Amino acid sequence: MGTAFQELKVGMIGYQFMGRAHSNALRSLPFYFDVKHRPVQQVLCGRNAAEVEKAAARMGWKEYETDWRRVIERDDIDVIDIVTPNHLHAEMAIAAALAGKHVICEKPLAMNVEQAQDMLRAVRESGVTAMVCHNYRFVPAVCLAKKLIEENRLGKIYHFRATYLQDWGMNPALPPVWRMRKELTGSGALGDIGSHIIDLARYLVGEIDEVVGSMDTFIARRSDQHHTHIVDVDDTVSFLARFYNGASGVFEASRFSAGNKNGNRIEINGEKGSIRWDLENLNLLHVYLTDDEKGLRGFRTIHCTDVDHPYGDIYWPAGLSIGYEHTFINLMKQFFDGINTGVDPKPDFKDGVLNQMVMAAVEQSVVEHTWIKVPSFTD
Amino acid sequence: MGTAFQELKVGMIGYQFMGRAHSNALRSLPFYFDVKHRPVQQVLCGRNAAEVEKAAARMGWKEYETDWRRVIERDDIDVIDIVTPNHLHAEMAIAAALAGKHVICEKPLAMNVEQAQDMLRAVRESGVTAMVCHNYRFVPAVCLAKKLIEENRLGKIYHFRATYLQDWGMNPALPPVWRMRKELTGSGALGDIGSHIIDLARYLVGEIDEVVGSMDTFIARRSDQHHTHIVDVDDTVSFLARFYNGASGVFEASRFSAGNKNGNRIEINGEKGSIRWDLENLNLLHVYLTDDEKGLRGFRTIHCTDVDHPYGDIYWPAGLSIGYEHTFINLMKQFFDGINTGVDPKPDFKDGVLNQMVMAAVEQSVVEHTWIKVPSFTD
Amino acid sequence: MGTAFQELKVGMIGYQFMGRAHSNALRSLPFYFDVKHRPVQQVLCGRNAAEVEKAAARMGWKEYETDWRRVIERDDIDVIDIVTPNHLHAEMAIAAALAGKHVICEKPLAMNVEQAQDMLRAVRESGVTAMVCHNYRFVPAVCLAKKLIEENRLGKIYHFRATYLQDWGMNPALPPVWRMRKELTGSGALGDIGSHIIDLARYLVGEIDEVVGSMDTFIARRSDQHHTHIVDVDDTVSFLARFYNGASGVFEASRFSAGNKNGNRIEINGEKGSIRWDLENLNLLHVYLTDDEKGLRGFRTIHCTDVDHPYGDIYWPAGLSIGYEHTFINLMKQFFDGINTGVDPKPDFKDGVLNQMVMAAVEQSVVEHTWIKVPSFTD
Amino acid sequence: MGTAFQELKVGMIGYQFMGRAHSNALRSLPFYFDVKHRPVQQVLCGRNAAEVEKAAARMGWKEYETDWRRVIERDDIDVIDIVTPNHLHAEMAIAAALAGKHVICEKPLAMNVEQAQDMLRAVRESGVTAMVCHNYRFVPAVCLAKKLIEENRLGKIYHFRATYLQDWGMNPALPPVWRMRKELTGSGALGDIGSHIIDLARYLVGEIDEVVGSMDTFIARRSDQHHTHIVDVDDTVSFLARFYNGASGVFEASRFSAGNKNGNRIEINGEKGSIRWDLENLNLLHVYLTDDEKGLRGFRTIHCTDVDHPYGDIYWPAGLSIGYEHTFINLMKQFFDGINTGVDPKPDFKDGVLNQMVMAAVEQSVVEHTWIKVPSFTD
Repeated sequence: MGTAFQELKVGMIGYQFMGRAHSNALRSLPFYFDVKHRPVQQVLCGRNAAEVEKAAARMGWKEYETDWRRVIERDDIDVIDIVTPNHLHAEMAIAAALAGKHVICEKPLAMNVEQAQDMLRAVRESGVTAMVCHNYRFVPAVCLAKKLIEENRLGKIYHFRATYLQDWGMNPALPPVWRMRKELTGSGALGDIGSHIIDLARYLVGEIDEVVGSMDTFIARRSDQHHTHIVDVDDTVSFLARFYNGASGVFEASRFSAGNKNGNRIEINGEKGSIRWDLENLNLLHVYLTDDEKGLRGFRTIHCTDVDHPYGDIYWPAGLSIGYEHTFINLMKQFFDGINTGVDPKPDFKDGVLNQMVMAAVEQSVVEHTWIKVPSFTD
Repeated sequence: MGTAFQELKVGMIGYQFMGRAHSNALRSLPFYFDVKHRPVQQVLCGRNAAEVEKAAARMGWKEYETDWRRVIERDDIDVIDIVTPNHLHAEMAIAAALAGKHVICEKPLAMNVEQAQDMLRAVRESGVTAMVCHNYRFVPAVCLAKKLIEENRLGKIYHFRATYLQDWGMNPALPPVWRMRKELTGSGALGDIGSHIIDLARYLVGEIDEVVGSMDTFIARRSDQHHTHIVDVDDTVSFLARFYNGASGVFEASRFSAGNKNGNRIEINGEKGSIRWDLENLNLLHVYLTDDEKGLRGFRTIHCTDVDHPYGDIYWPAGLSIGYEHTFINLMKQFFDGINTGVDPKPDFKDGVLNQMVMAAVEQSVVEHTWIKVPSFTD
Repeated sequence: MGTAFQELKVGMIGYQFMGRAHSNALRSLPFYFDVKHRPVQQVLCGRNAAEVEKAAARMGWKEYETDWRRVIERDDIDVIDIVTPNHLHAEMAIAAALAGKHVICEKPLAMNVEQAQDMLRAVRESGVTAMVCHNYRFVPAVCLAKKLIEENRLGKIYHFRATYLQDWGMNPALPPVWRMRKELTGSGALGDIGSHIIDLARYLVGEIDEVVGSMDTFIARRSDQHHTHIVDVDDTVSFLARFYNGASGVFEASRFSAGNKNGNRIEINGEKGSIRWDLENLNLLHVYLTDDEKGLRGFRTIHCTDVDHPYGDIYWPAGLSIGYEHTFINLMKQFFDGINTGVDPKPDFKDGVLNQMVMAAVEQSVVEHTWIKVPSFTD
Repeated sequence: MGTAFQELKVGMIGYQFMGRAHSNALRSLPFYFDVKHRPVQQVLCGRNAAEVEKAAARMGWKEYETDWRRVIERDDIDVIDIVTPNHLHAEMAIAAALAGKHVICEKPLAMNVEQAQDMLRAVRESGVTAMVCHNYRFVPAVCLAKKLIEENRLGKIYHFRATYLQDWGMNPALPPVWRMRKELTGSGALGDIGSHIIDLARYLVGEIDEVVGSMDTFIARRSDQHHTHIVDVDDTVSFLARFYNGASGVFEASRFSAGNKNGNRIEINGEKGSIRWDLENLNLLHVYLTDDEKGLRGFRTIHCTDVDHPYGDIYWPAGLSIGYEHTFINLMKQFFDGINTGVDPKPDFKDGVLNQMVMAAVEQSVVEHTWIKVPSFTD
């Protein structure tokens, strides 16, 4: 007789918002899922010793560390989970991969296409499992949308439209946090929230051929106690897209949309039906089917918490909502299953590269003020 | 060759809110429908000569009159439309019927069961066509609900629940308008708006066997320039009901429900599905079918303006809303068709009697503080 | 003593969908509004004598005519109302104006900028009152949005986003109706429904400086009994826009969005709040105000039917919906008031020209595959 | 220097649906909250050794046990958490209290008033902390409603209306599970879900004076592999209520409402405003305030996940939903804080008794077919 599962020791770098979400997912994975690989929250890493010690204690980590390289050097660590600001992703992920660690990395994968490609190369060469955290793929309602599209229930796709609208940027007194500084974040609304809807577009509809975009920085200067900074990233971005399969895309990400807290909303229209989804009411999928009986056609509001729904047997009875955090638990399920089976979980670093290529094309289209082809990626 | 239609001269008694709704319906009927009998707005009647003259001019009436008996006595008048306060309905309707006029009467039909029965007797004996204006039967979404139930799409009905919530009564400075005075109105929220949801219940689910209710008058005294009146009708009424077919009913009508302007909302749950409807968004019917495919079950939001919907070929293209006033146009279509075909249109005065019997039972249940059987009506 | 109003005789050219909407508005105007100029439905014009005779009888026109030039030549006609396919607007409107008739013209004003400019010149030189029928300006909820913006309740505008989504084009068996033939319609989704959201954008936010767009024709060939036609207009169009005041705009119009019947939806985000509106539930305006009390911030769902709302004293009590057709009645109110006061009602032919300029820029941007400046219009 | 918190060892009896919800809450409490007393999942108890062992391993319990009395006898156990079917609550809770253990007990507290009173007496005499798990008090949106009412933002309350609608009972093939057998559950829909809306009513509006109800059992017989059972509990219950403060109440709980999965919905109307809440979209509170500016009145849809909201600083950024399970984490926070501070957390066993008294009155009103006073409870 042996144990039913194997333990994998995780080292996490970073401990803020995403650190909490990932820590919670790691601790919750075996509670909800019957997994073969069970994560152990071994060591939490951050630069401020006092803070990271406190965070580790609160979030269930056995040890803490202040130097991320030392975490990666440890032989007993199996998985590195990167939840730092964006400018650190590449260096950490590459080091982790080269040290033979499986890697989870927050989105956007990198600061630019080149970094992302380096990261992909590193994980491929090392043969480790790697995943980029576009967690919204793991909302049950989104999984149901994916299933419907894969089963051709919507037919040929004509339209993808998405917004990701927030309003936290509107406060002029807000200091220039890292998400507003290019050197730390790469881009603004585009990389932070635009990358999520690009991922949903690629996941649900397919690859993008060409884009044209527009960016704005509505508040040009922001001050902290010490300095006034020029805000060098976008407060908002919008772009049109042409998908390879002929679908037409419209995207918009904004931090200046009053009343929208996390207005990640998508609508897809196909030949045989449509779906709508909104993160602020994430359990609901709205589905319209053109072959429904005449006179009874309308968008169905589906509370995707029934046993028939993706992940519907994992959480609570029908009608009892799950929340934001469960998207990360579901993601971790894919990740640790991927380690177990050797089948790479999606979205992987290649998805990260492709996402970055779309973002780069959008940025270039803004600079050149015209449509830009997304380069094809020869694998 | 002859004319394609016959003209029927209408005399309307009353010219306030309901007078406007009926006048508009009369003038609009031939615009929208291809009717055999076309109403002529012949004479409008009211006590205040100056006011009724102005109203007649505005609303398209050829003549005006101040004595309703003179209108009924006119040989050239074919139809009497009664839109006065409730205490006048019986006398007017009976006189009109006895004079051989077809009768349209606003709801509630009468002040009490006895009056209603007298009215029914009069129209039956005279052989005229008569209708009581429960106009919400003629909302396309409600017609679709009716059709689904008749086709057994919901199966055996388990539940009927309805509210009719308003908030205009909450203002303590409001004088004791006629709708708040028993001698003029019969009852308060019960007769005014409760009668509408009773009608919808009877129309959609069937007859009611037994009720128990509760009433409140939250503001007991109201003043006009001259006097303080004791408010002797209900500001709100709620009641439980048992239908003959075994369904369970819950009803509530209120003038003290802040934020609800015309919250006439019903939900019906059956063995095979459910429907929901809300007057404030009257074009929508929400339909749930238990035999929908697993994983895709949800309430469908149906915008009942398509050609496949009741009255869907009459008004505007799909997605372009109709409003409150169209319920009266549709009602008039039934009325004038009824005159033409000799088939009595529903809801008729018998419906008015049955409605009044439910209301009487509710009132008695409040007085006796227990369940009361609705008497059976031997026709 | 004299009459309280003056009669203006109207000649209408065309009698299909828009003909019904306008006829209804003309006949309804004096019922609802106390107008100084009361339209008389004098003559209806169409090419097919039998059909136009029938339509005239149904819709309340005194006479009918088959040659539009004869209508314009009549001395007794004061107003020409043009509800024909687009390719006829210019010739008719110019002839009407030169004959000294006031002109109402359906949208889009013309087939192109040049025509529109000619039309504007004609009405200006003739000094007649002229209006283009962007009827959605006259939805009470939209009027309330306009009022809030004018009162600076939203502050500086950051974002305008709008869709106008339909799905009638999706049926491949649909013959090439005039709205799908460039020679008759000018453009497809762009001119038909895109022009409406351009008008709302201009009305609510201001003039557009620059655009970049994309168009698709998803079904390239359509057949009637006789021929197969190449569809030479857009089934869908999307475009990004930059407003002169710095706001960012995203527009999409489509006839291929399953489940969307008339999904004319706008959201505007400003420094101090946001609004949302949807034609399919046209009585509702959703308003978010950032200076609402902390903890109680949320979009307010306002049923714009109360006496405090635009046109709220004209129709029915609060909570009782009005519909699509009332937008035309309200528009006619502006038009006939404009004739009376001599103050040009909006949207006027200049609005038509400016709208056409935006559309032309969008079309050019599609052809040239890049951003295009909307030319400034020197009046 | 000492430790920042003290550990309290918990023994939980039962491990099904509620066992999972409570286990998750216990394990999650210190992750989210900075608590002085930290629960230790010491021992899980159930009758089936193999099953309970598996459940313990999955849900993070250190030990398992098959005899609940042995758990209570253990000196090291501080807290007993009872998540068994209802017929076992009283015996277990009383034994636990007498053994000096703090007690958490699932709802409804007991099988009847007498049992509930015995339980209350036991916890009072023992001086232990005890709580009954009406978890919906701990939904942030409900907490916000409570706060508004306590601050008199709604003024005098006129109406409370609530439904708790499910549809799992509709399947005739469903065997007679314990929730359908009186000897195990006490009552059907009333105790199971009706007790929740009674608790919300008492929490938000106050005590109930008098009730009259109706019950139905739509499917009278149900079979398992062995027998056919007469279903001796209610599939649905509805009742009217009068609150001591004069408010009017309407309640309905049903397991036969197709399409409603957990339709726990409340609306409260007061003199100065209204609130609406729906468990199926539990993060949203809808608030209407009569003193909002004229023309801008409407229900505000508040996503209660902002830092200004109850528990808003505990979970995720604004707009990112929490779910059903968080209500239990919040409840545990109150419970362990209560142990720490000695201030009894609510809802306590007295709330359980009062809830049971309302339910008993409803049941008696059904039997006697008339209104029944809820007995006053002399503490």
